Amino acid sequence: MKRKAHNSGLFLTLEGGEGSGKTTLSQKLYDHLIGKGCSVLLTRAPGGTELGKSIREILLHKESIELNKFSELLLFLADRAQHVHEVIMPALNKGQIVLCDRFNDSTIAYQGAARDSFSPTYVEELCLFATENLVPDLTFYLDLDPKVGLKRANDAILKDGKNSYDRLEKEELVFHKKVRDGYLSLAKKYSDRIVTIDAETAQDKVFQEVAEITDKKLLEVSCT
Amino acid sequence: MKRKAHNSGLFLTLEGGEGSGKTTLSQKLYDHLIGKGCSVLLTRAPGGTELGKSIREILLHKESIELNKFSELLLFLADRAQHVHEVIMPALNKGQIVLCDRFNDSTIAYQGAARDSFSPTYVEELCLFATENLVPDLTFYLDLDPKVGLKRANDAILKDGKNSYDRLEKEELVFHKKVRDGYLSLAKKYSDRIVTIDAETAQDKVFQEVAEITDKKLLEVSCT
Repeated sequence: MKRKAHNSGLFLTLEGGEGSGKTTLSQKLYDHLIGKGCSVLLTRAPGGTELGKSIREILLHKESIELNKFSELLLFLADRAQHVHEVIMPALNKGQIVLCDRFNDSTIAYQGAARDSFSPTYVEELCLFATENLVPDLTFYLDLDPKVGLKRANDAILKDGKNSYDRLEKEELVFHKKVRDGYLSLAKKYSDRIVTIDAETAQDKVFQEVAEITDKKLLEVSCT
Repeated sequence: MKRKAHNSGLFLTLEGGEGSGKTTLSQKLYDHLIGKGCSVLLTRAPGGTELGKSIREILLHKESIELNKFSELLLFLADRAQHVHEVIMPALNKGQIVLCDRFNDSTIAYQGAARDSFSPTYVEELCLFATENLVPDLTFYLDLDPKVGLKRANDAILKDGKNSYDRLEKEELVFHKKVRDGYLSLAKKYSDRIVTIDAETAQDKVFQEVAEITDKKLLEVSCT
């Protein structure tokens, strides 16, 4: 996989299925890095730009539009392209750490591996086109049995009074199993970049493991 | 270029630069075909679906978003995919004539040939992916010197009190010259499908020529 050079900064991504704890972990990791005095940008896909917010609304919540699989994929890619060019690359070029909740691996796992119709390899090629070959320096994949993850996501909905699943959370269990298989294949293929974390263990332990690996990675690069 | 089989119906597209008279002509051709007792669907890209209207708004008029060239292209493709799957293919499958104001050739000419950065061949490949290889049966390319076209478009704005150019109309003359070159290359490459019409001649003459060719084409197919 070609890597677009960014001379400074560090690009970290968090990946995982529903209920894997990505969002909580990304906030903790952000606080940890800020506490060390780093300049960090916490962002997420889809939705990290003004365009992305409009697209996120369509992708995840607009019930009146029945998106076909092609337009769904292409909207994710349009969001990704804008996100990289408007937010991620400028931050990396300033030497910041960019911490991104979901990136291309999500698209490959969800739209490539889990939908029956696209080849993950072609989805990956499209992702690299949209992002001008930007690849994370380090990716944490929070691995979890989808049954456990969906139960957690469901419990969170009941607890928070959030009254609806989004479009992708509502997919069948078999879909989420394929998402997991997609992630596991990526983790095997890109073992130099993707670290698989057992997300069934206690959240504190997960955070500790992720923080330690990140701290080591920071020694290799120059961040502001 | 592979062609997705549709057993019945006829897929006609109108292409051309700004001020080439596509929109007026498509209405006239629609009336002509309806007058012959055909079942015709008149539609346009971008914007032929509910998703498309949201995307069209972003693409052409949302001044606050500075779209990068990748997200612009991918949004056009997302619109195209939804348009084909939700509107165009179902109509063709019912045996209707589909008359579409702009289609993939626009994307290849505008985002491929006229932007410096994408290869028209790769843009064409992406278009075929988004549309599952749907290719028009017949395309009219209304050819016009961009200087004349832009003057016409400008006069129309003054006459109609339309108070702003859209994003693509505002591009420089040199961009519109590249669009024309892109169209002319396509017309040469796909001379079996694309008929080039001199759009500088009187509108009535243009219509007559287009109607005659369409009537001949209708003899070859079975439409409802």
